[in-house]
Amino acid sequence: MRHYLDHAATTPLRPEARDAWLDASEMVGNASSTHGAGQDARRLLEEARERSAAVLDCDPIEVVFTSGGTESINLALQGLWQARPVGTDAIVMPDAEHHATVDTIEALVAAGAVLRAVPVFRTAAIDGREFADQLPGAALATALIANNEAGTINDAAELASSAAQALVPLHLDAVSALGHLPLSFRGLRGDAPDALGLVAMSLAGHKIGAPVGVGALVVARTARLSALLRGGAQQRGLRAGTQDVAGAAAFATALELAESERESETTRLAAMRDRLVDGILTRVPQAELLGDSSRRLPGNAHILFPGAVGESLLFLLDTAGIAASTGSACQAGVAEPSHVVMAMGRSEQDARSVLRFSLGRTSTDADIDAVLAAIADAYARASGSGSAARS
Amino acid sequence: MRHYLDHAATTPLRPEARDAWLDASEMVGNASSTHGAGQDARRLLEEARERSAAVLDCDPIEVVFTSGGTESINLALQGLWQARPVGTDAIVMPDAEHHATVDTIEALVAAGAVLRAVPVFRTAAIDGREFADQLPGAALATALIANNEAGTINDAAELASSAAQALVPLHLDAVSALGHLPLSFRGLRGDAPDALGLVAMSLAGHKIGAPVGVGALVVARTARLSALLRGGAQQRGLRAGTQDVAGAAAFATALELAESERESETTRLAAMRDRLVDGILTRVPQAELLGDSSRRLPGNAHILFPGAVGESLLFLLDTAGIAASTGSACQAGVAEPSHVVMAMGRSEQDARSVLRFSLGRTSTDADIDAVLAAIADAYARASGSGSAARS
Repeated sequence: MRHYLDHAATTPLRPEARDAWLDASEMVGNASSTHGAGQDARRLLEEARERSAAVLDCDPIEVVFTSGGTESINLALQGLWQARPVGTDAIVMPDAEHHATVDTIEALVAAGAVLRAVPVFRTAAIDGREFADQLPGAALATALIANNEAGTINDAAELASSAAQALVPLHLDAVSALGHLPLSFRGLRGDAPDALGLVAMSLAGHKIGAPVGVGALVVARTARLSALLRGGAQQRGLRAGTQDVAGAAAFATALELAESERESETTRLAAMRDRLVDGILTRVPQAELLGDSSRRLPGNAHILFPGAVGESLLFLLDTAGIAASTGSACQAGVAEPSHVVMAMGRSEQDARSVLRFSLGRTSTDADIDAVLAAIADAYARASGSGSAARS
Repeated sequence: MRHYLDHAATTPLRPEARDAWLDASEMVGNASSTHGAGQDARRLLEEARERSAAVLDCDPIEVVFTSGGTESINLALQGLWQARPVGTDAIVMPDAEHHATVDTIEALVAAGAVLRAVPVFRTAAIDGREFADQLPGAALATALIANNEAGTINDAAELASSAAQALVPLHLDAVSALGHLPLSFRGLRGDAPDALGLVAMSLAGHKIGAPVGVGALVVARTARLSALLRGGAQQRGLRAGTQDVAGAAAFATALELAESERESETTRLAAMRDRLVDGILTRVPQAELLGDSSRRLPGNAHILFPGAVGESLLFLLDTAGIAASTGSACQAGVAEPSHVVMAMGRSEQDARSVLRFSLGRTSTDADIDAVLAAIADAYARASGSGSAARS
């Protein structure tokens, strides 16, 4: 039997989202076509936009559907950079962002941007004062609402408020927060001036049970943003390409469900996660829970196993039918220490010894039991002290 | 009853592609994860890549899955531009390309590129000699294999051969050709030197019965191309983001089916299309078939209705249950004359008086009959000479 504890990498498709996708796929017609078939598709698309906007607390026109979180982040960062005010060249980025952000900013730096890095605390939380100090005169700023590896929740309202006060456009990466935290785009934006403060927020569908391949970028009405994919006037000219009506309908359905279950799931997942963490720390006394003890995504357990190679631990758990992660799946397979863990002030060796367990909608007590049954032996083997346990 | 004659805008999802999507969606796991669930997803993904490569006659590693035709085109053009050799700044583009190409090149010109435009003939065919003459020293060149509005088929082999000889990297837009013409990437590339000649070919899934939201860019092993979406090492580092395994599986399935039916469908669609054209020209003697009489996509009828407003004609046909198009759906709704028709040497007024009927897998004789029953009256009304017909 398989035990899937990698919901932060991707979580199973919700049956209701699948059905919404199937229903929409029965329709024939390009949503940009003016004939009846096209207009039927268009109606369903705009309905999906409205339903999404209702959950995200923004205007429907502010929802720009994309192919996923990575495209959303690239559109936000490249788009704000392209449209930046003359004379600005600095980008404010905390040290523990997702690779989609890190790699995009790296390319912008190669193209002339100046990076203003912001340290994170040992919990992976962004240093809000340092963030604010780096803002004045910047072309743009970006920050995670919740860290995808450590699960640490930042004070998004404070970051947005600082950006508004400093008159800098801010992108928030809400990919890992979506479905787990209340997200009000309007609330976070507050009374920021036009085109400044929070102007863009990235979302990915497959983290909440929508299909892979659909996401959204919430873009404030007044934002100054250039398109990344060109070729048509769809979606305010910000994202060309035939619009994925079925994907949008599935996204809206998953979003509504995730929001309706959010509070009860938070309670359920946090309890399971706490049992997982307590059980691991009991069985492996050397282990240490990283991140923040209270401001944490409910399904996240980010654990340091000193002296063990994370990849070996992962492999040993996998043979016991358990799926976990050493960090962002996007970097898995690449033998690099986690830059997030290193930004948290840990050594490179520690950064190779961390596992992330992430729970989600289909997680059960049996999944926790399976990890607890396997972890001591796996740790003993992966840390090279396991001859006894192996006998 | 509805008659859908806009298959070039989007064509119905194939049941087999839908089933492949559903099967793959049952799997849980990010294809970049190293655990068993991730590796199962990875296997399915690589299988889809291999199946696609077999149809397209390229190496599996050359298939880069994207979110669709527009992303593929943007990746090819922006990516080749970013990676261009020092000292080159010219882009060779024919006059009747798709808007995804036109708008992307326009943005590159704003960023410093110099456009070398290539005229098309009255048929919309690219002037191959002029194309070749513009190539020397260019940073990149681009061309449609088949024109999406006029249906005219270009001599892709000649264009690719010219680019190889001129040592210029070439992108071919195969979106409207896919499923209708034999496409061998290896054959078109020929013995071009590394990174030169044909290096990239764009494809879209929903034009062949795969879902909207999936496409591919075939990228030669040796191509020098920068990524557009950054954030991970997936797909040779050319396209970051969680890979859409279900989309890829559906794409491969649709591609195999389209290829297996291609010859029989070409015969069937061309016969129906010819009956449609002959019938329209008989009923509306003023009408004129545009494009090329022989080198033409089998399902395409591109017809000028002199003196009629295309949008009005479209609306009148729509009330009779008939879906057609005035041109690229991406521009529909925007009251612009077709730049393609104008590039074919027609007046702006003519460019507003053209309809494209496009047939596909689900087209039947009843669809043709419906158009033939409605067209004379619709034309009479749309050209303002219809009081008699209206009585």
